[in-house]
Amino acid sequence: MRRTVTIELATPATEMAQEEIPKQVAFLSKEISDIRFVREGAALEFEAPEERAADLARAAEALARTMQRSLRSLARKLVYRSPACDRVEFRGGALPAGITQMGQGQVALEGIPLRLYRYFDRSLEALGAPFSPSPILVPTLIPAATLSKCDYFRSFPHIVTFACHLPEDMPRIEDFRARHQDRETLDDRALGDMAHPEVCLSPAVCYHVYAANRDRVLPAGGARYALAGRCFRYESSKMVDLRRLWEFTMREIVFLGTRENVLGLREQGNELVARYLDEHRLAGEIRTASDPFFIAPDAAAKTYFQISSETKYEISLMLPEGERVAAGSLNYHTDFFGRAFSCTIEGAGPMHSVCIAFGLERWVYAFLAQHGNDPSGWPDVVRRSPEMAGL
Amino acid sequence: MRRTVTIELATPATEMAQEEIPKQVAFLSKEISDIRFVREGAALEFEAPEERAADLARAAEALARTMQRSLRSLARKLVYRSPACDRVEFRGGALPAGITQMGQGQVALEGIPLRLYRYFDRSLEALGAPFSPSPILVPTLIPAATLSKCDYFRSFPHIVTFACHLPEDMPRIEDFRARHQDRETLDDRALGDMAHPEVCLSPAVCYHVYAANRDRVLPAGGARYALAGRCFRYESSKMVDLRRLWEFTMREIVFLGTRENVLGLREQGNELVARYLDEHRLAGEIRTASDPFFIAPDAAAKTYFQISSETKYEISLMLPEGERVAAGSLNYHTDFFGRAFSCTIEGAGPMHSVCIAFGLERWVYAFLAQHGNDPSGWPDVVRRSPEMAGL
Repeated sequence: MRRTVTIELATPATEMAQEEIPKQVAFLSKEISDIRFVREGAALEFEAPEERAADLARAAEALARTMQRSLRSLARKLVYRSPACDRVEFRGGALPAGITQMGQGQVALEGIPLRLYRYFDRSLEALGAPFSPSPILVPTLIPAATLSKCDYFRSFPHIVTFACHLPEDMPRIEDFRARHQDRETLDDRALGDMAHPEVCLSPAVCYHVYAANRDRVLPAGGARYALAGRCFRYESSKMVDLRRLWEFTMREIVFLGTRENVLGLREQGNELVARYLDEHRLAGEIRTASDPFFIAPDAAAKTYFQISSETKYEISLMLPEGERVAAGSLNYHTDFFGRAFSCTIEGAGPMHSVCIAFGLERWVYAFLAQHGNDPSGWPDVVRRSPEMAGL
Repeated sequence: MRRTVTIELATPATEMAQEEIPKQVAFLSKEISDIRFVREGAALEFEAPEERAADLARAAEALARTMQRSLRSLARKLVYRSPACDRVEFRGGALPAGITQMGQGQVALEGIPLRLYRYFDRSLEALGAPFSPSPILVPTLIPAATLSKCDYFRSFPHIVTFACHLPEDMPRIEDFRARHQDRETLDDRALGDMAHPEVCLSPAVCYHVYAANRDRVLPAGGARYALAGRCFRYESSKMVDLRRLWEFTMREIVFLGTRENVLGLREQGNELVARYLDEHRLAGEIRTASDPFFIAPDAAAKTYFQISSETKYEISLMLPEGERVAAGSLNYHTDFFGRAFSCTIEGAGPMHSVCIAFGLERWVYAFLAQHGNDPSGWPDVVRRSPEMAGL
């Protein structure tokens, strides 16, 4: 039996606490579902199994208190709000044909969704063209040692995907083969057969850029890159549709340079993204935000730092019923990656970096939700694009 | 201490046996290296550790005998041999800048190699345009159950990559996190922390097409698809450069239909590939070949069947010193995938299929080996392509 757990808060949660607290509460147990605030933030509710309700209520209450304390003096900064926010219609109904679920958080795209995906891929690459970035093609595999340098195992261990294989050991492979001749799923011994894992799947494409610049001294003007690739974040039962996939596509523009250099470029990025939202009549905001750090002693502090220092600007697109989707972000990493990969700027110390990242499937989802499936109602810039030819 | 193991064969190995036997001998042990035939096929040699030499010699001799017996009556059929084969120069020296090794069998591409990669991606997509295929974007993740239906665990268990993650279990994730705070590599307990694996990484993009057509009845004319994506084959110490990567890019054209339908389309494919080789002045052949099935009781029989029935045509490009690289293939799968995924052709029983597949990084490698790094010596069709603009 499941029941609703209600936690009355000492003080009502601010808008930001209402967004940040559920991210953390979700980690308490996979048995928790439907986490929401009620009565304008006065109480937190979720569904949980009867027998675990008391325990989970206590844990969630403590967590909410810590998060509220961390965030209490913070206000979310709004960098940009598109005019479409004030007249958004949500003409999308059922999703169009062409989205096939191939597995958990895995989709194949055809037809209209694929055309839009390609449109966003090309046009968001074009958005970055004024920066004259160097194109680079990166792997989706990433050595565990690289991800570790990016602090990923400490901040996001719960969403890492590891790439494993059988060892070069004939009898062990033959045993695996024989056991799997006549079954569809992997058996209980399969995991134990595998070699020690040394490689993961990329959760973001820009990590490869920092790793590729390992031990380099970059010129005073820094370096700029454009890239796109598949990314992987295992998000359990939250992976339901294009809004949250295990495997999705990220397009990025990456700036390496001095602090002033990369922060200046991020400001230009804000302007380009704002203009892009307008051109596409998309209802969305650019605003300070935080990542869903794995619940740990320092998670609340990290969230506070990320929001207060404005290291993360999120591109938040509107969905029906007050929902939103983070379709991209403009992130300043200070000199974290410069130090991690021993990359410096000539005459200026450790390299600072900014990445502007877009999650293509989320743009497709939000575009369809706002503009609907019928191309005749779409903005001209999309309707007349080469990707829609013959539609 | 390592030594050279020499195995005198009862009868000299044919050209085909000389290509097929080393694929199988390599599986005997990861300690075997440098497998080659000497004295025009009269003897097989490899390097191995002193203490294992006798054992491995016996195993290799038995394997060679089985393979020779299986292949004895077979001749490789040459479908096409490009005129450039008779005047190939190999103008490539050192590889150009722009290929960065990011990990084992993992590369990043920039500069000339990236331009060529994009050229081959676009022009090989254009090669398929006469078939008017439907574009589809597929995941790189693939459920183990799908791969199992494709008979992959039985035929190629040694090269599968499995996608693993931690379970939704807070204490276990926190324990993993704490253990990996201050280390770069995964510890010995990491594998044991992971949840039961249910997903793998695609070793070929076309499997998704068969799975997407599961339980469908296709019209009499069949269906055609165009797609590209990252593929993963763990090939141990053989993964040294662009010729053999753990992660590479495959572009495919896939035909689903009746036997006559798909075999007719494959013939057209042969002609298009032949013309493509000519236009690019590439020295290469289209010829019958086999896959490197994992050594198992039925491996020799499968190899015999694959070659004798001409199910696999390989696009074999010439490299210096008598080497070759399989840069693509045109494969007829009979009704195997139709039966596996319960897909039928209206009024004609189980669906038959053909795929025409290209490994993009291998085209880049062979092109550079044959035509060199200097674009001024390249065929016009490449030199004047949009991908080379501004070079």
